[in-house]
Amino acid sequence: MAEKIRIGVLGASGYTGADLVRLAVRHPNMEIAVLTANSHAGKPMRAVFKHFAHVDLPDLVTIEDADWGAVDAVFCGLPHGTTQAITKDIFERYPKVKIIDMSADFRLRDPAVYKEWYGLDHTAMEIQTEAVYGLTELYRSEIAGARLIACPGCYPTAVLLSLVPLAKAGLIDISDIVIDAKSGVSGAGRGLKENTLFCEAGEGLSPYSVGKHRHMAEIEQEIGKAGGVADLRVNFTPHLIPMSRGELCTSYVRLPQGQTAADLRGHLIETYAREPFVTIADEGVLPQTQMVRGSNYVVINVVPDRIPGRAIVISTLDNLVKGSAGQAIQNFNVAYGIKETTGIEQLPLFP
Amino acid sequence: MAEKIRIGVLGASGYTGADLVRLAVRHPNMEIAVLTANSHAGKPMRAVFKHFAHVDLPDLVTIEDADWGAVDAVFCGLPHGTTQAITKDIFERYPKVKIIDMSADFRLRDPAVYKEWYGLDHTAMEIQTEAVYGLTELYRSEIAGARLIACPGCYPTAVLLSLVPLAKAGLIDISDIVIDAKSGVSGAGRGLKENTLFCEAGEGLSPYSVGKHRHMAEIEQEIGKAGGVADLRVNFTPHLIPMSRGELCTSYVRLPQGQTAADLRGHLIETYAREPFVTIADEGVLPQTQMVRGSNYVVINVVPDRIPGRAIVISTLDNLVKGSAGQAIQNFNVAYGIKETTGIEQLPLFP
Amino acid sequence: MAEKIRIGVLGASGYTGADLVRLAVRHPNMEIAVLTANSHAGKPMRAVFKHFAHVDLPDLVTIEDADWGAVDAVFCGLPHGTTQAITKDIFERYPKVKIIDMSADFRLRDPAVYKEWYGLDHTAMEIQTEAVYGLTELYRSEIAGARLIACPGCYPTAVLLSLVPLAKAGLIDISDIVIDAKSGVSGAGRGLKENTLFCEAGEGLSPYSVGKHRHMAEIEQEIGKAGGVADLRVNFTPHLIPMSRGELCTSYVRLPQGQTAADLRGHLIETYAREPFVTIADEGVLPQTQMVRGSNYVVINVVPDRIPGRAIVISTLDNLVKGSAGQAIQNFNVAYGIKETTGIEQLPLFP
Amino acid sequence: MAEKIRIGVLGASGYTGADLVRLAVRHPNMEIAVLTANSHAGKPMRAVFKHFAHVDLPDLVTIEDADWGAVDAVFCGLPHGTTQAITKDIFERYPKVKIIDMSADFRLRDPAVYKEWYGLDHTAMEIQTEAVYGLTELYRSEIAGARLIACPGCYPTAVLLSLVPLAKAGLIDISDIVIDAKSGVSGAGRGLKENTLFCEAGEGLSPYSVGKHRHMAEIEQEIGKAGGVADLRVNFTPHLIPMSRGELCTSYVRLPQGQTAADLRGHLIETYAREPFVTIADEGVLPQTQMVRGSNYVVINVVPDRIPGRAIVISTLDNLVKGSAGQAIQNFNVAYGIKETTGIEQLPLFP
Repeated sequence: MAEKIRIGVLGASGYTGADLVRLAVRHPNMEIAVLTANSHAGKPMRAVFKHFAHVDLPDLVTIEDADWGAVDAVFCGLPHGTTQAITKDIFERYPKVKIIDMSADFRLRDPAVYKEWYGLDHTAMEIQTEAVYGLTELYRSEIAGARLIACPGCYPTAVLLSLVPLAKAGLIDISDIVIDAKSGVSGAGRGLKENTLFCEAGEGLSPYSVGKHRHMAEIEQEIGKAGGVADLRVNFTPHLIPMSRGELCTSYVRLPQGQTAADLRGHLIETYAREPFVTIADEGVLPQTQMVRGSNYVVINVVPDRIPGRAIVISTLDNLVKGSAGQAIQNFNVAYGIKETTGIEQLPLFP
Repeated sequence: MAEKIRIGVLGASGYTGADLVRLAVRHPNMEIAVLTANSHAGKPMRAVFKHFAHVDLPDLVTIEDADWGAVDAVFCGLPHGTTQAITKDIFERYPKVKIIDMSADFRLRDPAVYKEWYGLDHTAMEIQTEAVYGLTELYRSEIAGARLIACPGCYPTAVLLSLVPLAKAGLIDISDIVIDAKSGVSGAGRGLKENTLFCEAGEGLSPYSVGKHRHMAEIEQEIGKAGGVADLRVNFTPHLIPMSRGELCTSYVRLPQGQTAADLRGHLIETYAREPFVTIADEGVLPQTQMVRGSNYVVINVVPDRIPGRAIVISTLDNLVKGSAGQAIQNFNVAYGIKETTGIEQLPLFP
Repeated sequence: MAEKIRIGVLGASGYTGADLVRLAVRHPNMEIAVLTANSHAGKPMRAVFKHFAHVDLPDLVTIEDADWGAVDAVFCGLPHGTTQAITKDIFERYPKVKIIDMSADFRLRDPAVYKEWYGLDHTAMEIQTEAVYGLTELYRSEIAGARLIACPGCYPTAVLLSLVPLAKAGLIDISDIVIDAKSGVSGAGRGLKENTLFCEAGEGLSPYSVGKHRHMAEIEQEIGKAGGVADLRVNFTPHLIPMSRGELCTSYVRLPQGQTAADLRGHLIETYAREPFVTIADEGVLPQTQMVRGSNYVVINVVPDRIPGRAIVISTLDNLVKGSAGQAIQNFNVAYGIKETTGIEQLPLFP
Repeated sequence: MAEKIRIGVLGASGYTGADLVRLAVRHPNMEIAVLTANSHAGKPMRAVFKHFAHVDLPDLVTIEDADWGAVDAVFCGLPHGTTQAITKDIFERYPKVKIIDMSADFRLRDPAVYKEWYGLDHTAMEIQTEAVYGLTELYRSEIAGARLIACPGCYPTAVLLSLVPLAKAGLIDISDIVIDAKSGVSGAGRGLKENTLFCEAGEGLSPYSVGKHRHMAEIEQEIGKAGGVADLRVNFTPHLIPMSRGELCTSYVRLPQGQTAADLRGHLIETYAREPFVTIADEGVLPQTQMVRGSNYVVINVVPDRIPGRAIVISTLDNLVKGSAGQAIQNFNVAYGIKETTGIEQLPLFP
């Protein structure tokens, strides 16, 4: 019998929180001790998400009523802003708890950038400095020792896993990157909004937040860091696609003289040779969200464009799994020294 | 390290075969030794189903080239007709192999009924007599000792789990059952047909095979048996729904004098109290396919109709999992004395 | 140049109101003079529904600010309850205005039944008595002279067009009718509800309002009237289907001794021989929503069940067109003596 | 009563042909005289497309059996290659017939380019030289006098309407254009292919034909011509989206010094001020396919990117209407001197 680590989930009534719970229930080293959802406090989880009808779970409680002394680790699926205060409070009272944050509050290193994109002053800078950016494949050793892990946004996970190694190796011109991003509707959350109604989002396709999407800040931070450029700017343009899960980023890149798409692909194959969750597709195979649905896998490929000197880098993941809850568990596993694939190695669900 | 049972999958290029492989890859007691698909022989599985890009699997071979000596158990996802001959041949050469058949070839006890519905003479009656009907919850002890397990169709699984206990207990009038059935498109298989194209099946709803669906024969056989009526006839009317997975059957039943929907519900709760995969929904909660997608669970409920003397029994499952590949693995577990939930206890994927 | 009748639309920010506007814009005898939507007053219509970007329309106003003196006819797409008061007020001030109501307020003849189903006392009984039930094919001559037309609900339109002629002719046993109904999500309106979010309604199927759907009252009223039975009860069970538009009702009926499905079909062919919008499908062709999407057509067929003495009647329509806005315009045409098909004869959009 | 022009439709069993028929049935100046579909010859149209159950149409015949003497105009919805020979034959026998071709056979001016992309020698160059490129808004006067109109592909229509005026005016740098294109599944036609099955294309998103899509040739030809550059190359990358109809192109452009997105938008507003089917969206409104579904409208907008010196041009249309059948009718209207909007002014269907 594996030893159980007691976990709490903050914001269990959102899609990310629920997907975390879905995976945690079957994780051999997790015991779900606390589930919070202020607007649904007092209800059983299966009243809020009917697909939990099959299992017993703790009833939902308010954040105030949650007993953080009863948990070893907290997964946080709250909106940005709120997260800072709660994290600070938990650390003050229970300094040994590990927090794996799926919100945006600790992703950006520069408080000015945080304020620019999120419209708020950061009020917990003292703990932000210890936060590790939770892109497992790129920050594994830091995550291993961290108490506060800031999991990346879903889009940044897809983009950075494909472009950061190329930027580091100087294989792309990072000053000229166009990222056309497409996401299923679950990325917009469970809140009631007209544009995510079935009749509005179904059978249709819409660009959104063009030039304004907050994930752009993370993408620029990390690619800039990899390529050694401060204040990098990339073009990042998201589109809402009529599907529930899945995300695909098509990145148009310019190559340094002499480089080819095959060189980029070769570099990624080498970089990710031993990674359990990163698949470089076979030559000529175009990644598609159907290759990752419901799983923690990322698929990447690089294909030539017929325009000389350019290539197209395509990456895809399930926004709720590798883009959020799955990667959070992957980080949990790393942080607790558990086998990294534990609890998240389901193959994709297709069809 | 659990001991591994070597399995083969006949017909691995269909949706059922692929879902079996998806689950088998992570099943701790299975080792995939043979995968057949005559039309794709020689190809790697990931060329036929891209979502297998993440794992190594044996290449596809023809049935003729398959080495049945290398396997302990065979899962069969072939069309009816073909299955009989192959099963017979395998048993003749390797009498210790267990065969878990997901086709229709061994489900019907009466060869005349088989011929009526499938238009073929049954050519392997000598082994059909040893076949056990693989509805796990109802035939568990027989399955435990069986060499040939005929897994039920997807619709019959949903219908029979909800109605057989009621028929046995005399809680419904089995001479007047109307079953309005709804299925996602994966039930029609991966073959190329105009009516399952995205543009034809999407954004629309069609009844099909009205009064002619072959699953009706199994349903009548088993409810008739439970209620002690030969030649039972039920009304079974399927509809194609614009979703990939999932099936829901709404059964309209007439009650014997004095019985109520609550009585039926109470009886089902009692019947399935210790079943790991059958969930009787909370009072008033209407089953929906979203409660089971990608999982081996069945959800059932009974709700009153405002017409006195009638009730509505609703059951739902994922046609590819509990309706096919998942139940096949459940039967495999029972047949090999492995814990019944092994490898199939993933919670539903929602959204 | 056709003479223009000035119209107003109450509740133009809902799906029904918008579909009325879509058709009215191109109706040669209509001029849109007033559009109300209290929650969006002051906005241009194209800010509320982007697909109106191509045309000029009056800005939305509140009901209070609407100038009913400027219109000849009012289409009302408000929720029930509200409609009564407004109708009364308009008639008091402008007795020559015709009102074509798409809400439920004037459909039920018996105020006790109205109260039972809608939970409200009816407060405008004096005008309700003059309301004509706007099922065009069945009440055409009454509609021609009416000032207040109560258009049926979408489900009742589908059910009644198929069953009323059969009930009138004594071709079905109306004491034993089971109607399994399926509707696209637009039937639930544009209001923000969790169950109509894309991620909740998509890729899934749910029964809803079982035994409680308000359209049951209309169905019972009209079939009872046709068959000469007071207090008739039918089984009516609706399901939410992952598509935007379309509705299909599968009605399971018992036949009097000696009748067959073919007799029923023959009677419907005769009944609707000269109707422009009612299509009896070819023998053996199963109606499907894809045959009517975006159009004012209804398709009906009767198919035999293999159980002797039973038949299955299937009918389908687009809930927003023939089920609401299209039928309202059809009634408008009848009431004003315009050719009945004017403005609503678009063929279905497929795919 | 308007005078009727007798039309024939070659290839009436495809989606484009069917959408042409849908609109032609209600076009006041068209009489459908001939419908061909070799694989379905002898069948009524409603057996091939059930949504035509409501109207009487000529039965389908083979191309060989079609009586071209009975028609004034032919709409051609055949695959490329086939079209050339048939067009030549019709013109030889009936030189006064007008042909409106929806295939790719007469779009490319340079036979070498045709051969490069379509793999065939062009065998009807003598008539190709008289073909007019049927992008109505850009070639209206040529279309007015033409006998052979080569309607553009769906993607080129969306792209060229948005970029050609900008290229002509020197407002974009045509040497650096990245076009990320997204299309619904109907763009792939009604042929049976595994990747367009509901279960394969649904709930997922795939890039396809990257760097190889044949529409690229038209796009390069026309933008190159507008900008005065021979052998222009653009990046054009299509993606398959889980919806039936609709297409959206997101074009990433670099601006000449001093130009802004607002300048581009202003130029398009001016260019299209009097066009009935081209809508420049309000400032800041992002085009989405929901604004055009089922209609002949195109919506375009230009939005700033936060990267200085770049802009994003977005255009959307219904691939079967303005992208094919609708534009073909628009060209027919122009060619016959009928009011240009006749028969194609339906507003979009939403939801």
